[in-house]
Amino acid sequence: MNKKIVVIGGTAAGLSAATKAKRTDPSLQITVYERSGYVSYGACGLPYFVGGLIPKAEDLISLTQEQLKYERGIDTFIHHEVVKINREDKTILVKNLDQNNGSPKEVAYDKLVIATGATPIIPDIDGLRIEGKLADNVFTMRTVEDGILLREKKKTGKKLVVIGGGMIGLEMAEQLTENGLIVTVVEAAPQLLPAFPAEYAEKIKTLFTQKGVTILTGVTVVNAENNGKAINKLHLSNETELEMDYILISIGVSPENGLAKECGLELGIKGAIVVDQNQRTSDPDIFACGDCAQTYHALTGKPAYMPLGTHANKQGKVTGNNIAGIHDRFDGVLSSNVTLLYGKVIGSTGFTLQQALENGWQAKSISIIKGDRASYYPGGMPCHITLVFDVPSGRVLGASAFGGETTAGRLNTLAAAIRMGMTTKQLEEMDFVYMPALAPVYDPMLIAASSAQKARKKE
Amino acid sequence: MNKKIVVIGGTAAGLSAATKAKRTDPSLQITVYERSGYVSYGACGLPYFVGGLIPKAEDLISLTQEQLKYERGIDTFIHHEVVKINREDKTILVKNLDQNNGSPKEVAYDKLVIATGATPIIPDIDGLRIEGKLADNVFTMRTVEDGILLREKKKTGKKLVVIGGGMIGLEMAEQLTENGLIVTVVEAAPQLLPAFPAEYAEKIKTLFTQKGVTILTGVTVVNAENNGKAINKLHLSNETELEMDYILISIGVSPENGLAKECGLELGIKGAIVVDQNQRTSDPDIFACGDCAQTYHALTGKPAYMPLGTHANKQGKVTGNNIAGIHDRFDGVLSSNVTLLYGKVIGSTGFTLQQALENGWQAKSISIIKGDRASYYPGGMPCHITLVFDVPSGRVLGASAFGGETTAGRLNTLAAAIRMGMTTKQLEEMDFVYMPALAPVYDPMLIAASSAQKARKKE
Repeated sequence: MNKKIVVIGGTAAGLSAATKAKRTDPSLQITVYERSGYVSYGACGLPYFVGGLIPKAEDLISLTQEQLKYERGIDTFIHHEVVKINREDKTILVKNLDQNNGSPKEVAYDKLVIATGATPIIPDIDGLRIEGKLADNVFTMRTVEDGILLREKKKTGKKLVVIGGGMIGLEMAEQLTENGLIVTVVEAAPQLLPAFPAEYAEKIKTLFTQKGVTILTGVTVVNAENNGKAINKLHLSNETELEMDYILISIGVSPENGLAKECGLELGIKGAIVVDQNQRTSDPDIFACGDCAQTYHALTGKPAYMPLGTHANKQGKVTGNNIAGIHDRFDGVLSSNVTLLYGKVIGSTGFTLQQALENGWQAKSISIIKGDRASYYPGGMPCHITLVFDVPSGRVLGASAFGGETTAGRLNTLAAAIRMGMTTKQLEEMDFVYMPALAPVYDPMLIAASSAQKARKKE
Repeated sequence: MNKKIVVIGGTAAGLSAATKAKRTDPSLQITVYERSGYVSYGACGLPYFVGGLIPKAEDLISLTQEQLKYERGIDTFIHHEVVKINREDKTILVKNLDQNNGSPKEVAYDKLVIATGATPIIPDIDGLRIEGKLADNVFTMRTVEDGILLREKKKTGKKLVVIGGGMIGLEMAEQLTENGLIVTVVEAAPQLLPAFPAEYAEKIKTLFTQKGVTILTGVTVVNAENNGKAINKLHLSNETELEMDYILISIGVSPENGLAKECGLELGIKGAIVVDQNQRTSDPDIFACGDCAQTYHALTGKPAYMPLGTHANKQGKVTGNNIAGIHDRFDGVLSSNVTLLYGKVIGSTGFTLQQALENGWQAKSISIIKGDRASYYPGGMPCHITLVFDVPSGRVLGASAFGGETTAGRLNTLAAAIRMGMTTKQLEEMDFVYMPALAPVYDPMLIAASSAQKARKKE
């Protein structure tokens, strides 16, 4: 009989695992259960769907259920929630959410993939919940349904408070401001994007302020006033209050680990499911991948939790190969990340200075600003680069950058350099492409490396 | 007494050497002689100055003679041609071109820097010269004066023939077509940009044809008809003829080695001046850098001739450090190059397939096309990537790319990968940044690496 593979979760990680396994071993019988109403959607596109740049929810879908069935040979069920894993029997219990009175069905597996993703962290604010449920006008942004809800609500002149000034909070603030909403971002840390250099955060704050967004940093929400249905006022830690029509909560996610926890799988950082480099959990017949799983850092091999779409896809592929009997291992993460806010790119890769120090390097960091084209060519933008490096060896350990659209390519270049152990001396001498319209003769990366070399010599 | 440094040539390499040496050892007495009327200009910007995007010739100047003198402590002389090097006496003879009858002046040096650059190669075409001189309406593009001449001539409706379909020829063809000239490009090779994959060249040809440029490939100019002053007709190898108002010759450059040859310095590839990794010639008191000097490949250490502005600047810096007594070595070239043509980026880094094979690798190449943003995000462009790799080890040896503006960053990323010996397996697993507006979840580089991995497994 054909081996039965059950996958819990039908987005990036789960579907990557399913499609890779099936392609590698077509004899596998693969079933995917997805709790929401959509499979195979690009969650990172949600802010742009809410904002309207992406016209239809269907545009976010990479493969439809029909394509998955008839072109890929994979059965998917939406509105199906797996409620229990029985490791002894190698079965799961799955509930059809469209049948109110139906009892959960038992399904057997040979190999199980947990790709349940992550859930938004809800801050502990008095009054945010009404009768145990989030008030009607409080939103999060994880599923297509979340996107559809907020997209329907967005009306010019409505007031939105975004709790959380990280990348997704800011992407949403930008998109909804562009749609005519009056947006306030409340960030508890002393700056937006707390993992980035303060000067970058200051520039981002200015960008948003210029567009009419109110940015409050170092401020928390103390409690919420509601009228029994919806929240209409927030009391802040700076003793002011904010009236609003909607609240969007975007302060991060935590791994969706309920099933794994209940069946006794080993959990790690933030409760993420512990897996080895082959994405196998503490039960050899159960794999986990994506935002529900722990991962490891490519430079140190140490455990890390880094819920990003790129990792989810790659981990899914590794899972699929291993399930189909082809040994594969995930190469670890550099935590490379990027976003585009009002035409400016901000991102980072590798270690921050603090992380580098914590990991035992004699690290230092330098920052430079340099035009991203030849000075005489029209349209250049300043490009900020911060390099984190080990002083004795000169090894590049991390980088952040902020600037025009060309900045994303520089982050990737630095990611490759970091991955391969490039030193600041080697980086200073790199033969990068040059052409007045595309880069200055000394690319900002070379200037940053040169500045790092000077800082090393001073030590 | 202070050491006397004489530099022949006042653009990228020469001025980098001069400024670096002076900054490192302020006691040096540095004099720069430049044959043309301009020092410190960005020659790569000339097509955009001719086209008008860069308004004034002065905009191309990075440091004026006054700044060089009063801020950097360097004496520069324009319209001064060095006509002889006496190695035995350690003197040069320099002629002031503004004084018709003046005799050359002797100047002593402790260290000499030859940074004479390169001169355009003029094809051997009957009738191109009138009384031994290029006809009045034949242009080349190396100096600011060349740019000014052609900029004055460009008039809507005038007919221009560009001989040579390489990067600079095409940049000029684009700029002058945008200015309303009727442009024909004649390229002897079977395709434009002969070092690139044929499918890239085909796309570039289409771009130009759509803009009204006539592209003739596999065609040479057999002879030129002139009226005693200017050329008015070209006879082509395909037995057609072309009438024109101007001709621009852009078929490459050869190192300006006259002085070096005459004084017996060792010459190498294409007659370029042989230097060691410290930019020192066969005479220990003479350095050479930039387009007149031979260099070496970063991957093989073998000699190479690669006249590009980035190398000239870096070699100048190395020269300056060594002259000032700080040991420095040039890291070699990867031949990274790029241009922007009608909004499309094309470039390459590292070895072509043929070069990799010639250098003893069991090389293979693959090409892919993949959108440069998330498929659902508006405005994406196809990105072509060709990877050259060693089959047994998987080492990435070279890359070409063609696509939107984000392509330049991918070339730099691949340059870093190539420099550090990254394998296709490592590249396939790289943690690159992802965000729908900036890149797809699987960046085109990852897709290319994955395709290379498949090709390796088939071997």
